[in-house]
Amino acid sequence: MNFCSNCGSDKISLEVPEGDSFKRFVCKNCGTVHYQNPRVIVGCLATYEDKILICKRNIEPRFGLWNLPAGFMENGEKAEDGAIRETFEESNANVEIIKLHVVFSIPHVNQVYLHFLGKIKEPSFKATPESAEVRLFTREEIPWNKIAFHSTAFALEKFIEFGPDYPGVHIGSYLK
Amino acid sequence: MNFCSNCGSDKISLEVPEGDSFKRFVCKNCGTVHYQNPRVIVGCLATYEDKILICKRNIEPRFGLWNLPAGFMENGEKAEDGAIRETFEESNANVEIIKLHVVFSIPHVNQVYLHFLGKIKEPSFKATPESAEVRLFTREEIPWNKIAFHSTAFALEKFIEFGPDYPGVHIGSYLK
Repeated sequence: MNFCSNCGSDKISLEVPEGDSFKRFVCKNCGTVHYQNPRVIVGCLATYEDKILICKRNIEPRFGLWNLPAGFMENGEKAEDGAIRETFEESNANVEIIKLHVVFSIPHVNQVYLHFLGKIKEPSFKATPESAEVRLFTREEIPWNKIAFHSTAFALEKFIEFGPDYPGVHIGSYLK
Repeated sequence: MNFCSNCGSDKISLEVPEGDSFKRFVCKNCGTVHYQNPRVIVGCLATYEDKILICKRNIEPRFGLWNLPAGFMENGEKAEDGAIRETFEESNANVEIIKLHVVFSIPHVNQVYLHFLGKIKEPSFKATPESAEVRLFTREEIPWNKIAFHSTAFALEKFIEFGPDYPGVHIGSYLK
């Protein structure tokens, strides 16, 4: 942050405001405190029969690696609706949400993943601008050495270890 | 947003960037796209024996109403650690996290709550700058007509309906 988005001043200081305990960008001209908080990534481990829908990334980062459909939650939506939207954007599949599957924090990049379990009723999906390829994998076929993100590996591992009927949510994190 | 936080220009336009499907604040001078995303509020329904820890708010909004300890998740922390931190900040209680209890979206204010279940080992807590009073309530004593937020009411209702041993997570939302 170089300039205050409220008043345009360049008198930006990184400091702990009075009564706070974290450093914030504070505008010394107009007094605005610019809070920055983690972003939520909503995604879906979607199955058709006993296979898992996984997308080959057509965008950076991790271009060419495989990932569960997921993306930043948007203002104005519910978490579960964001997971449905992202699944459609990345795979053209219409998914029905079953339950929350994983909460995965990555503190050093200020992200928290919410991965839901879902089902697709028909094997209807296709490549999209974001995914060079979309495929259903059996558990044995999962390309473990070409998975894009730790969050996806965690979600897949827990699904395989505990199965689709596990009632709880798996809490995980990646600490650098 | 009145000015670009990158270059200081006032040429800010609210538009859908190429390849995107949501309106963003875009700087027409330097090209920076200023994404805005929901914020995560982490909190805790903490119990001691069969009682629930609830705080009387000493700050706006909802000054004087009762709430589960909760607050904005901070950059650099795990979700569950944020819930522990907020519980201590608001009640001075040291809580041990048991599981995730509630995911509650409030789209019109761009918020998603993650409420965990926790236990406090000792009935050690006190008023803080954020809480005028901190109390343990039996289920029968909960001040239903003086609860601060829908997210807290939802978390309390589900806890009472399903009990502390329910293995799943309750997904809810408040739509205005």
